[in-house]
Amino acid sequence: MAECLFCDVAAGLAAAEVVTSDEHTVAFLDVRPVFRGHVLVVPRAHVETLVDLPQELINPVMAQAQRIASCLVAELGAQGSFVAINNTVSQSVPHLHVHVIPRTKGDGLRGFFWPRQKYAAGEMEQYAQRLTAALSH
Amino acid sequence: MAECLFCDVAAGLAAAEVVTSDEHTVAFLDVRPVFRGHVLVVPRAHVETLVDLPQELINPVMAQAQRIASCLVAELGAQGSFVAINNTVSQSVPHLHVHVIPRTKGDGLRGFFWPRQKYAAGEMEQYAQRLTAALSH
Repeated sequence: MAECLFCDVAAGLAAAEVVTSDEHTVAFLDVRPVFRGHVLVVPRAHVETLVDLPQELINPVMAQAQRIASCLVAELGAQGSFVAINNTVSQSVPHLHVHVIPRTKGDGLRGFFWPRQKYAAGEMEQYAQRLTAALSH
Repeated sequence: MAECLFCDVAAGLAAAEVVTSDEHTVAFLDVRPVFRGHVLVVPRAHVETLVDLPQELINPVMAQAQRIASCLVAELGAQGSFVAINNTVSQSVPHLHVHVIPRTKGDGLRGFFWPRQKYAAGEMEQYAQRLTAALSH
């Protein structure tokens, strides 16, 4: 296996501010946070993207993200959180990592989900049909 | 219970381009997509945020998101995907919805995760300590 920074973090071979860990996951601070308190949750197993995550690891990884999202509000005074996974595109380290980011109203992140695009007439139905067909088998 | 658009979608009472559904989830196209093919996965149960999602629904919801993320690459020609959850802040409909968005290199979304902030000296350790303490009980 090629060298992997997050495998090294999980194994304790690379420095990181670990905030919690368990049998299947390690959670640590992103060194370049979108906002302070930005945590990354990674499975200990080397998995590249969400698509590659074995079914039995979905709950351990996402329950950990959930727990941290809750904690950011309860303990760090955030008003909400943003939980996000970049798969392949914009993914800096090819080891699945779930971003858990504290949010506050007016913090400037809103711009990301704006502007939205518009479907041309008939185009939305087309996309729906393609996806429905693809997801039916 | 107050009226909820996504409860209505799940119940078939509000129009939506549903692409797949199962016992616990419904997935449909976002009407104002970040990129075309942008899907929202919602639990049928009314749950406001990821923090409120019962443990037994984490796998059904996220496995559905995983399946769609896979499909966007395999069937719609995307190079990757972005899977994201806004909890409270920037959350337009107060019923948990997982965004599954097709990504292509150079599509312009990269800006979101940039610029990052920097921790002042000692600040990162402070955040780590607060989170570690909060997550230890």
